[in-house]
Amino acid sequence: MHQTNADIRRLDIEHFIHPYTDFATFKSEGSQIAARASGVHVIDENGQRYVDGIAGLWCVNLGHGRREIVDAIAEQAATMQYYNPFGHTTNIPATLLAAELAELLPGSLNHVFYTTGGSTANDLAIRMVHYYFNRRGMPRKKKIISRVDAYHGSTYVTARLTGIHATKYDFDEVAEGLVHHVSAANLYRRPAGMDEAAFCNHLVSEFEDRILQLGPDNVAAFIAEPIMGAGGVMVAPAGYHARMHAICRRYGMLYIADEVVTAFGRLGEWSASETLYGYTPDIMIVAKGLTSGYVPLGAAIFSSEIYDVISTPQRKGAVLSLGFTYTGHAVACAAGRATIAMMKRDDVNQHVRKIGPLFQGLLSSLRSFEVVGDVRGSHLMAGIELVKDRHQRLPFGAEVGAAHRVFLACRRRGLIVRPIGNVVVLSPPLVFSQEDCRETCRIMSEAVEEVTPALLAA
Amino acid sequence: MHQTNADIRRLDIEHFIHPYTDFATFKSEGSQIAARASGVHVIDENGQRYVDGIAGLWCVNLGHGRREIVDAIAEQAATMQYYNPFGHTTNIPATLLAAELAELLPGSLNHVFYTTGGSTANDLAIRMVHYYFNRRGMPRKKKIISRVDAYHGSTYVTARLTGIHATKYDFDEVAEGLVHHVSAANLYRRPAGMDEAAFCNHLVSEFEDRILQLGPDNVAAFIAEPIMGAGGVMVAPAGYHARMHAICRRYGMLYIADEVVTAFGRLGEWSASETLYGYTPDIMIVAKGLTSGYVPLGAAIFSSEIYDVISTPQRKGAVLSLGFTYTGHAVACAAGRATIAMMKRDDVNQHVRKIGPLFQGLLSSLRSFEVVGDVRGSHLMAGIELVKDRHQRLPFGAEVGAAHRVFLACRRRGLIVRPIGNVVVLSPPLVFSQEDCRETCRIMSEAVEEVTPALLAA
Repeated sequence: MHQTNADIRRLDIEHFIHPYTDFATFKSEGSQIAARASGVHVIDENGQRYVDGIAGLWCVNLGHGRREIVDAIAEQAATMQYYNPFGHTTNIPATLLAAELAELLPGSLNHVFYTTGGSTANDLAIRMVHYYFNRRGMPRKKKIISRVDAYHGSTYVTARLTGIHATKYDFDEVAEGLVHHVSAANLYRRPAGMDEAAFCNHLVSEFEDRILQLGPDNVAAFIAEPIMGAGGVMVAPAGYHARMHAICRRYGMLYIADEVVTAFGRLGEWSASETLYGYTPDIMIVAKGLTSGYVPLGAAIFSSEIYDVISTPQRKGAVLSLGFTYTGHAVACAAGRATIAMMKRDDVNQHVRKIGPLFQGLLSSLRSFEVVGDVRGSHLMAGIELVKDRHQRLPFGAEVGAAHRVFLACRRRGLIVRPIGNVVVLSPPLVFSQEDCRETCRIMSEAVEEVTPALLAA
Repeated sequence: MHQTNADIRRLDIEHFIHPYTDFATFKSEGSQIAARASGVHVIDENGQRYVDGIAGLWCVNLGHGRREIVDAIAEQAATMQYYNPFGHTTNIPATLLAAELAELLPGSLNHVFYTTGGSTANDLAIRMVHYYFNRRGMPRKKKIISRVDAYHGSTYVTARLTGIHATKYDFDEVAEGLVHHVSAANLYRRPAGMDEAAFCNHLVSEFEDRILQLGPDNVAAFIAEPIMGAGGVMVAPAGYHARMHAICRRYGMLYIADEVVTAFGRLGEWSASETLYGYTPDIMIVAKGLTSGYVPLGAAIFSSEIYDVISTPQRKGAVLSLGFTYTGHAVACAAGRATIAMMKRDDVNQHVRKIGPLFQGLLSSLRSFEVVGDVRGSHLMAGIELVKDRHQRLPFGAEVGAAHRVFLACRRRGLIVRPIGNVVVLSPPLVFSQEDCRETCRIMSEAVEEVTPALLAA
């Protein structure tokens, strides 16, 4: 039976519950259908073509329809799509991908626990941190410090790690007392009169004070994205991460780097923590770009120091009791290996290091618009914050839907961006050409120009 | 670079952290490599062929290497591997699979929230249950009743739902007070002197008493597998589920059926709850067989009554703030659609209804062995419980590794089974032939015969 576009739209409204839906309009308006995709473009049900300015959702790093990844998936699915890797069983793609990750990631991050995405990897990391301190005989050292505006996932516990206030309406929080949030490293909205260095001092002091308040014997880990993603693309002050890491060391805490967005080339590096920010985390979380979004896969990668503790024989007959059916899924890991192979072959990181500054430079011209308060980011990760008043940095109310208006104006012009509150987010495929960068920034500029009068009147 | 088997085994030990590993032996012994698979067989690194008696891990329902599913995956990956379905965007495979699920599942289970597996689907269901009661203005109605020996996943909160004691060593539990466990519906180990009907009364009374103890205004939901899986394949007493469901209705509680193992044909039905056990859950959790294990996918499917509440417009500007990057992944949903199409084309459910009784009948001959205390299950889901003393139903200590010995003896004969504590679990692909059933039961019989003397001496 062939379904028309109208059929699809009706079935979608009736049966598919979408994440982050606004039900004030969903049932009457329904969804746009992403029907096909190719390279840096996604094509809707009417054949309309859009530049995919967000790489699916910060993940389709090598672009859509790449034959090499499709072939690798098909070949592995035919050879052996799945066999459980529990206990003393393994499969070849999962083993080789783990070895490749150990090679590409810094320090002694050599031990890979696979999951099905970023949420499950962060969730598992927290369980493992607790297990680690139990095995070390420190059962009270359990609290996790996260940050306001952090995004770490959507399982119940990772939603608790997440510090974005807008995600909390009508939802509950579990694990009271487990997670404590310190301030976001939000340079744009730092206290008046502080320069970047003073703001960094302020954040580091706040962190250390919080640890001392909670008691160092009770605090297990700090979790942070190198650049905050869904919280609005926030680049921390210079030196911030290395100093936060040093504080973790001082108090025997672990540093969990959530590199779900930043690893695999978005910042022109395999991972950002060490190369760009000068610290080596104890646990690194990866997903998204790891398979370029072709098959769900995530991983928590542990240092040898942690592995040595969690891999000592447990009590007789007991085993390391965690993991998912789809941990180390062979097809997912084959997609990961193909992604890494293509990134090496085409030196995608080098391309991003070249194109990234161009992209950021072109976007910075948006600062000339009165409603643009901040343009920030690094390489192929950018956030444009819209404000009601530039001088006072006064935000638009949620009811204005400021970034959403820019999203609509861009879409009419053939570009997809992501509105998050008052921030327009861009995270294009890493294979963006100079011309793609120019087209994207030109459309953004036209879109902001179009909505400016209405926003100023709002 | 071509890796030898020895290379793979070394890299596996060095870099791949496996779920459920016994580190007393892992680093010295390493893993067996599942290198290829075809039909009902998996083939190791030395070319040795094994009957896959556990369908990967209760999931490869249609067997390995099925060309139709591989082609569907490759085609969708080339057409559009991924685009986010957040807010007002959808994709065709996810929409059509949701509509097909609504058609195949009972009652008003018509609204699909996709995740990446069973753990994430259960985790999301709990978050949504809480959201649902918040939206209904019942913020205290939040506690979940689960069962001892239940398995519901490995996120932090679903590990809390899980009631298998052996999974708890050295791990912590979050969300104190959220989850309460009632007894397993374990007919084999029911109190002495109770017949099946009396045991059912006992379990139903215990459940109602627990609700009254916690306060009906505080209890949100009951979660249960139709047949317990990882807890040891436990078939509940006749009438149990329908009566537990009636109690839920009486106290305004939701019934969450975890059909991750039982749906998609393992019991000869699309889902087991209504057809086999006479109740319609409010939320059904599916994964595993949904894609026959080819691509990670799970879903929580909600009744219209729940959907009507969670889909009313929220406060201005707020959205339904949950979901995963890989919710509704197009390639995963295409694998699901291909799986369902093949199940319909080949009438796989009818095949299981025919072959299931043969399989259970053949296995029941194992009762003649002195160390076999119980043989139980339904259709293509079976558990053989080993005991030290049949008359007293005395279990072997964990240090004996009773089921593990049977696992090794089966593997030497070319059959993979799954040892869980003292239970040997079988859950073969649904495409098992009569001959496959006979071979499996013959090998099981030889293996149990081989290990019996050593077990009796242990």
